[in-house]
This record gives sequence, structure tokens and C-alpha cells, in this order.
Amino acid sequence: MRYDIAIIGSGPAGLSAAINAKIRNKNIIVFGSSNLSEKVIKAPKVDNYLGLYGINGEDLKNSFKAHIEKMDIQITEERINNVYAMGEYFVITANEKMYEANSVILATGIEYTKPIKGEEEFVGKGVGYCATCDAALYKGKRVAIIGYNSEAEEEANFLMEIASKVYYIPMYNKDYNVNKDVDIIKDVPLEVKGDTVASKLILKNTVLDVDGIFFIKNSISPKYLVPGLEIENGHIKVDRNMKTNIAGCFAAGDCIGKPYQYIKAAGEGQVAALNAVSYLDKK
Amino acid sequence: MRYDIAIIGSGPAGLSAAINAKIRNKNIIVFGSSNLSEKVIKAPKVDNYLGLYGINGEDLKNSFKAHIEKMDIQITEERINNVYAMGEYFVITANEKMYEANSVILATGIEYTKPIKGEEEFVGKGVGYCATCDAALYKGKRVAIIGYNSEAEEEANFLMEIASKVYYIPMYNKDYNVNKDVDIIKDVPLEVKGDTVASKLILKNTVLDVDGIFFIKNSISPKYLVPGLEIENGHIKVDRNMKTNIAGCFAAGDCIGKPYQYIKAAGEGQVAALNAVSYLDKK
Repeated sequence: MRYDIAIIGSGPAGLSAAINAKIRNKNIIVFGSSNLSEKVIKAPKVDNYLGLYGINGEDLKNSFKAHIEKMDIQITEERINNVYAMGEYFVITANEKMYEANSVILATGIEYTKPIKGEEEFVGKGVGYCATCDAALYKGKRVAIIGYNSEAEEEANFLMEIASKVYYIPMYNKDYNVNKDVDIIKDVPLEVKGDTVASKLILKNTVLDVDGIFFIKNSISPKYLVPGLEIENGHIKVDRNMKTNIAGCFAAGDCIGKPYQYIKAAGEGQVAALNAVSYLDKK
Repeated sequence: MRYDIAIIGSGPAGLSAAINAKIRNKNIIVFGSSNLSEKVIKAPKVDNYLGLYGINGEDLKNSFKAHIEKMDIQITEERINNVYAMGEYFVITANEKMYEANSVILATGIEYTKPIKGEEEFVGKGVGYCATCDAALYKGKRVAIIGYNSEAEEEANFLMEIASKVYYIPMYNKDYNVNKDVDIIKDVPLEVKGDTVASKLILKNTVLDVDGIFFIKNSISPKYLVPGLEIENGHIKVDRNMKTNIAGCFAAGDCIGKPYQYIKAAGEGQVAALNAVSYLDKK
């Protein structure tokens, strides 16, 4: 099954795109979280969303949730690893699963974690963002997984079945639900080193010799999420119609630039959806 | 008194600009109507304003009204005739009144009436948009006033005290509350003619020989509202920060381009306000 529009992100930009696309009778899929947006729910006070005064982030999230539920829009809880432009359509990968869509709206926010030294230099050369995707390459090898959330534990457990050694470096405080053979290291990653490929992960108190390093983040920088996507000053480059440099790929919200504000994001999500609809109708 | 920000328009773009500017402690004035927006209140059903589902235009207007009232934002009911960029500040004229502001946000919408043939050609050469402003030029002369709303009647009455002859061509159906010396003509204006200055108003059934012709519209095309403003394809040209070509002058909403949608306009109003604040803070 191929969707008309895949929307990546369930913050104000993604949801506004979703309701507008659905009103235009498009077959959509929205990837995100049932919490909708960590940023929204943490807001202590929201006074600048026109029409809703004197609310907090939780209220705003509930207004959004009521809106999409009344329109029968579901959120698919899936962390997207890559979006590939295939020419006439897009392939969207989420660990071992694949989705297809004729157009894509990126509404991924801006909360992606800053890369450590050497990380970006070695992407694709021993550094990756999806351990399960690349597991086959690390059969019998040593792998470090830097986990920014508890979902990363599953990736560590999965790799443990294949790799000879798995180091798990959690970047959060919780109980760690990992296989007993996984080596949990509580330390601070500082740098990736190597010659042509990554071979060392430098931590504050130790150095790990490894064949592969995975960073499992809450969201991936759009540059790595969508190969070939044009970035300008750290944001996805779009025109006034929210079009990126890739035909059929639109973007909206914090990921396209400041100010990082809810109704600005919602407005852009609407513009992205209406232009995606127009793109699809012209095809 | 000089305001920090003058906001022209009380639709979603203008109101969103107002609440954001007020939150940033700016001294603002909002020009518009107590109805806020004719376009909003006429909407039979609004499903695509994220957070407010299953409402009609009247509900949406009431949500907006409650929001600005709780924030103690008033609407100044004044039709703006011109905005003049004076370099360091702006002068805003509303008939005989003048206001000053350090920056301006244009949120005038797109509902301005289409010009008739010859109208634009003769602007400033016998054709104008504010009869009371230019009344002194027509002492003892013949003037036609094409009124798109009942407020135009006051302009006709005022001109009747100065001009030798006033024709009033109402473009609406109501009781006309004009001075008995004003000549009411129920007809359809088709064209303005003249050599170097306008001298004839061609109507469907008659021709009037006049020295001046005024079109009193609900809103004036931005091109005539703000001399020097850059227009592109019928809309005010702005960049991603909602900046126009005039320093300190921003624009948002339908007047800057499609899609003509409420939350798109509200998002842009927010961006315009935050950039106006940043402009003022840098001064």
C-alpha cells in the first residue's frame, strides 16, 4: 500500500498538516508519538496560540488530540530512520519496516541531539543511527550503542544476538532493561576516532575499541534522515510554499527555522499540506 | 505619542501579531473592526484550525475576541488611508487623524475591491481613496464618490460642504444617509477617463463630467496604502521573516499570498510580530 502523504512528526506542524491533508481526502500516515510532542506538553504556560488563551502545554496537547481524534487521524508510533526519494515516490524506513508514500512532509522539530566530535565525519563509515538496520554488517564484531532513550535498549539486545561484543552507553537515568551480556558503561561520549573508518569511541573516563558505533537519538538530523536534502544554517531549506529541494518533499515547523513557536509551526504545516495536495493532484 | 508597533488589520494575522507583540511588552495599536474579520464570521464551518475542531466562523471570532480581551488588547475602529515611511518611523493617516509608530505590520487581507478600468492609471491625478483627506483640492469643484460601504456617506456629506457638486454612487443596498444636496446615482461605474487628469466617470447608463473621483473601499490595495511597497503577483512581497522591502514594515496573512487560510495567517502574524520586536530592540 502506498500512502498519498507521509507526515513525519506529531507536533503542531505535523498535526496541522494531517488535518488539512485529511480534509482534502488524502490517504495519510502520521509518524510520531502518542504524547504528540514532548516540547508542547512541557510548556508551563501558552498565551500566544490565537484562540486558546491561558492554557498550559498539557491543555494544548489535549486540544490537538481531541481535534485529530474527532477527525479519525491515528498516530503511528514509529521512529523513522530514513526517507529515500525514489523519483516518483518515497520509501520510509523504520527499523526493519518499510512504508511507501507519494509525498512526504517533514515536521521533525529541532530537538535533535548535537553530534559529538568526529560523529558526522564517520557517518556511513562505522557510525550509524539505526543499529537494527545495519546489524548484518557487524556479525562477530564489537559495537558501541549510545542510547538517548530506553527504546535503544531493544537495539542493544538485538545486536547482542549477532555481534561479539556490545557496549551500551545510556544517556538517561532509568532502569536499563538489557541482555545480561551487554556491557553497560555509564560515561560521557566525547569523540569518534579512526583512520578511514571509525575504530575508537573516546569517553570521558575510558576508550572503547570498536568496529561500529550507533547513536540512537530521539530524532535524527534531517541531513541524515533524508539523503540529498538541502540544509541551510542548520535548518531544512524551503521556499514560501514549504517545498524542499526534493520534488514531493515538504517541510514545516521548527525544523525549517525560527521562531520555534506553535502557531507558526501549525500555519506552516497547513501550507505544506495544501502544497503537497496540489503536487499530488498535478501528478 | 509614538507606538512601538502599529498593526493594520484585525483578522487572524493582525490579532496573532498583536498578542505576540503585547507578550513582548510592546506598546501597540491595532486598527480594525469590532467584528474582527468579515471573512472569519461568514465561515459556515472551520475544521482546519488546529486545536479548535467543529466550529463555525462566529465561534472562531469569539475565541479570538476572548483571547484579546483577556490580554486587554483593544481594536481602534479606523479605516487607514495611508502609511508613510519617514525613515526612522511611520506616519499612519486615518481621514483627518494621524498616528505614529516605529514599526508597522500590514495584515490587511485580500478582500480589496478590483479597480475599474482607468482607476489605477489616474491615482493621484484626480482619483483618490480618501475624500476627506483631499477635500481642500476640490473647493468649488465637481466630485464623484463611489461608496462601497455606508461610512462613505460621511465623506460625501463632508465634501458637500466644500465642493460645488457631489455625486454619490453607492455600491451597496441600504438607506443612504446623505445630505439632500448630494446627488445619489444608482448605476455601475465602468471606467475613468481623462487626458492628463481624470475628467469623466463612465457609468453603465450615464457619463459624469467631474474634477475628482473617490473610491471609498473596505480596504485599499497595499500598493496605494503604503507608497513604495514592493508588490509581487498581486501580493505584498516578504521574506521568510515577513519583512517587506521597507525597513520596519512587516506583513502577514492573506495580503502576502496564498493559501488564504486562518492558521497560516495567524502563524505569519506571530512571525511578523517577533521580527518587528527584534527590529525595535536593535534600534
